[in-house]
Amino acid sequence: MTLQHLTAADDLRAFVDRFDTFLLDMDGVLWQGSDIIDGARETLAQFRAMGKRLIFVTNNSTKSRDSYVEKLTKLGFTGVTADEIFGSSYATACYFTTIDFPKDKLIYVMGQQGIVDEFTAQGFQTCGLEDQGAVFHGIDELIAIQPDERIGAVVCGFDGYLNYTKLAKAHTYLQDPEVLFIATNADSQYPVSGRTFPGTGALFQPLITSTGRQPTVIGKPHATMLDVIVATHHLDPHRTCMVGDRLDTDIAFGRHGGCATLLVLSGVTREDQVPSAPEDMRPDYIVPSLGAFQDVL
Amino acid sequence: MTLQHLTAADDLRAFVDRFDTFLLDMDGVLWQGSDIIDGARETLAQFRAMGKRLIFVTNNSTKSRDSYVEKLTKLGFTGVTADEIFGSSYATACYFTTIDFPKDKLIYVMGQQGIVDEFTAQGFQTCGLEDQGAVFHGIDELIAIQPDERIGAVVCGFDGYLNYTKLAKAHTYLQDPEVLFIATNADSQYPVSGRTFPGTGALFQPLITSTGRQPTVIGKPHATMLDVIVATHHLDPHRTCMVGDRLDTDIAFGRHGGCATLLVLSGVTREDQVPSAPEDMRPDYIVPSLGAFQDVL
Repeated sequence: MTLQHLTAADDLRAFVDRFDTFLLDMDGVLWQGSDIIDGARETLAQFRAMGKRLIFVTNNSTKSRDSYVEKLTKLGFTGVTADEIFGSSYATACYFTTIDFPKDKLIYVMGQQGIVDEFTAQGFQTCGLEDQGAVFHGIDELIAIQPDERIGAVVCGFDGYLNYTKLAKAHTYLQDPEVLFIATNADSQYPVSGRTFPGTGALFQPLITSTGRQPTVIGKPHATMLDVIVATHHLDPHRTCMVGDRLDTDIAFGRHGGCATLLVLSGVTREDQVPSAPEDMRPDYIVPSLGAFQDVL
Repeated sequence: MTLQHLTAADDLRAFVDRFDTFLLDMDGVLWQGSDIIDGARETLAQFRAMGKRLIFVTNNSTKSRDSYVEKLTKLGFTGVTADEIFGSSYATACYFTTIDFPKDKLIYVMGQQGIVDEFTAQGFQTCGLEDQGAVFHGIDELIAIQPDERIGAVVCGFDGYLNYTKLAKAHTYLQDPEVLFIATNADSQYPVSGRTFPGTGALFQPLITSTGRQPTVIGKPHATMLDVIVATHHLDPHRTCMVGDRLDTDIAFGRHGGCATLLVLSGVTREDQVPSAPEDMRPDYIVPSLGAFQDVL
């Protein structure tokens, strides 16, 4: 499909008519830093009034869906409910449901409370949070870490409490090839206040190197997250458009899942970067920002 | 050079005459697990009596040279002195000396006391051990981590005390391209009692992913460690032989440094693995074990 710049009012309206569901990245689409994108609130309210389904998609694995509802509501995005939020922790728990992961097995979480909450809500049993404050005391402590046949999976998310004990346990459990190795997302950096810190995609690297195994990654741009969204909400990908500001996560995500894709230029991507992007990261549509729809609907 | 199997007494004697210095891996060469290799003690005593110089080379970055002297002596290897021990921490500190790293700069150590001891002994200033017990409390703590222009290098070794705070600090310092990124060694696994745990080469992977930088690795099989040994002991590589049981670390190490190489089959490598090894991991000589020399010298 040829890239289409949406500028004329007719084009913008025809675009909206083409879809039932919009998957929305948040940072760079709804806000940029602490500023709300002009017209984004109004556009989403109009989409709702037209009966469009909105699903907010984030790779952040540490926050619960309720905390996103609270944040969006506080910023003036009205009518948001928890089932419209699709974080990578929730998507990962949904993935475990879709593969019928046994409820009597334990999931070792190398991550934070948000992951445990989503798994618990879907009836799974987790462990690992008890190692948050673990301090290494020496080799005897390593020898005491033993394979545990109750463990059926290791799930890695962002983990500010990462420590060597957690890595040593996860490494030990992953020696059993039956134990699943899953990551909520693979973002290499964790952005905070205009700076970066090591992200989830950095934190599971030691396990790849030490075990020789590769994790199944759930979050954007991997198709698994979109498969889970489609299955959970019974979406038709052909009537669904992914809206985002990043080519390598948001646009690739929509493309991998067979959805249409809309690039907004209100975030990190400049228009001149699009033509040189790999084919699977090129959007179908471009608008300056979500605000473009505000006056034409 | 063609691979030579040393079996005849004349060949064994001619081999020993060819070299002034033997670089010796320990695990698999002097002992295997808790068993001492038959004849290894006697052979090394004979090498000493013939005036050969012995240098014990290890990638372990956590133990001091004195603790290796103690271990070797306790196991019956006589006459060992601290300056015969070349661990990767010591080699790394020597490397900083050879590059004239400024003594007024700070070195952030993502590793244990052994590294700090070796750097301190050579007059360098380190920091990082104070983060051993750090526990993450949230985003405010990350924001408080600031670039620090006193830091001139990040050194990574084995670190059982690794935690997210250390990774976040190292990541922040490495944003400055002038800050050196050095690893004592790159072993992907840390062997303990017949099992494995994540090794140094696993623990610095998050920084590679989050910063996009690659560390300079000092330990075996990298040439830097051998360069430092040669410079420190004023060795002639042509009169030096590396003795080890691993093709990808020990033999590659000797080959990269222009030394002769002797593979002992008393460790992890079987003879039938040699012909299919990459050219730069093939030894010049093979013996069943160091014990082969015991009765012919």
